[in-house]
Amino acid sequence: MEAKRYAGEWSVRYIEPGMTIGLGTGSTVFFAIQKIGELAKQGLTVKAVASSDRSEKLARELNIPIVSFSSIDSIDVTIDGADEVDAQCNLIKGGGGAHTREKILAYNSKDFIVIADSSKLVEKLGKFPLPVEIVPFATSLTLQHLKATGCEPHIRQENGQDYITENGNLTVDCQFKEILHPILLDAELRKIPGVVATGLFSYSMVTKVIVGYSSGLVKEINPHEKT
Amino acid sequence: MEAKRYAGEWSVRYIEPGMTIGLGTGSTVFFAIQKIGELAKQGLTVKAVASSDRSEKLARELNIPIVSFSSIDSIDVTIDGADEVDAQCNLIKGGGGAHTREKILAYNSKDFIVIADSSKLVEKLGKFPLPVEIVPFATSLTLQHLKATGCEPHIRQENGQDYITENGNLTVDCQFKEILHPILLDAELRKIPGVVATGLFSYSMVTKVIVGYSSGLVKEINPHEKT
Repeated sequence: MEAKRYAGEWSVRYIEPGMTIGLGTGSTVFFAIQKIGELAKQGLTVKAVASSDRSEKLARELNIPIVSFSSIDSIDVTIDGADEVDAQCNLIKGGGGAHTREKILAYNSKDFIVIADSSKLVEKLGKFPLPVEIVPFATSLTLQHLKATGCEPHIRQENGQDYITENGNLTVDCQFKEILHPILLDAELRKIPGVVATGLFSYSMVTKVIVGYSSGLVKEINPHEKT
Repeated sequence: MEAKRYAGEWSVRYIEPGMTIGLGTGSTVFFAIQKIGELAKQGLTVKAVASSDRSEKLARELNIPIVSFSSIDSIDVTIDGADEVDAQCNLIKGGGGAHTREKILAYNSKDFIVIADSSKLVEKLGKFPLPVEIVPFATSLTLQHLKATGCEPHIRQENGQDYITENGNLTVDCQFKEILHPILLDAELRKIPGVVATGLFSYSMVTKVIVGYSSGLVKEINPHEKT
């Protein structure tokens, strides 16, 4: 938990007065929102949009001004977590069930900052089941197509029922074991009618990954920096 | 209206006893469903799945057995209309607001038969506004991205309110005027997070197009036949 806190709190240094901020969802983002709340109390003026009702509720409790999407043209920086981060900074997201909205936020942000504890770093994506949001129609047929891409698909359950996303859709957790080509797989999955969005986020969307370690160390990875 | 009837009634010759049939949506499909109802009354045994509540209701009224998607593995033939059919048999669909479900049906059918009156034939797609289904989240941002692909996007209205699809989403009618590369455009649009499905259907999905003329003539076009 401390490693998450280090990453989450570190990320707020990229927030400047007057910015419109995108807030992701999850336990690491929780610490970032907490910290933004502290800064807002000290006088930082920002506006925020949230990827989930949970994050919006937390932000409101901390008096971070929440604005509606219809009132903004762009987002300056979005801060969000990840379930896996590979060596190129491709991501799997969606364990929290909000990856479609998170992808819309990330895609529409000038900067997209990913925060994670060090346990999320992997060589190859795919040990974490890939969440895929699908429309709740002809589900058994869509599952067959998902399976044909090389995974074991399972409709996510919550309290013994199908988990319904905030968009009113289903989430299928696809167990691939190892994803060799995340960007190709994403394109292949998006070709299946009924697929709304996958939890694969290309490194091309990522500005930087902030990794927290339980030792207190924080490391920044920039996927676009020449090494 | 007669031209639609000719095309719709002609299409049922491709239905065989025991088949599972996909039923599309719209005024031309109406005539096909009517005809299937007549055949069912005369003893034809088929099962049907429908792309919309409207088509399902009509089929039930005509005593066509409706089955749920969860009980079938595949669809033998889907019969559906189109708003525009180009010279290669690429389609624009979705004027009726059900194109995502229609695409799922078509994609999962061994044969996909398109029925249309001759007014739907065009040299190039795009005079008819292309329907794009999007999730109702950060809509203004998604509209900006749609616009950047070269169209005038308008959120579809019904009775003075946003039209909501049976999947709970919005429909954006995108006025392109002329679509030069339907398949590339479809891929470009699907890259925008928040886009659920476009109304562009590639000729590769189409088994044949049945065109009705007001003269009573019916013409079949097979996009996969060498000429």
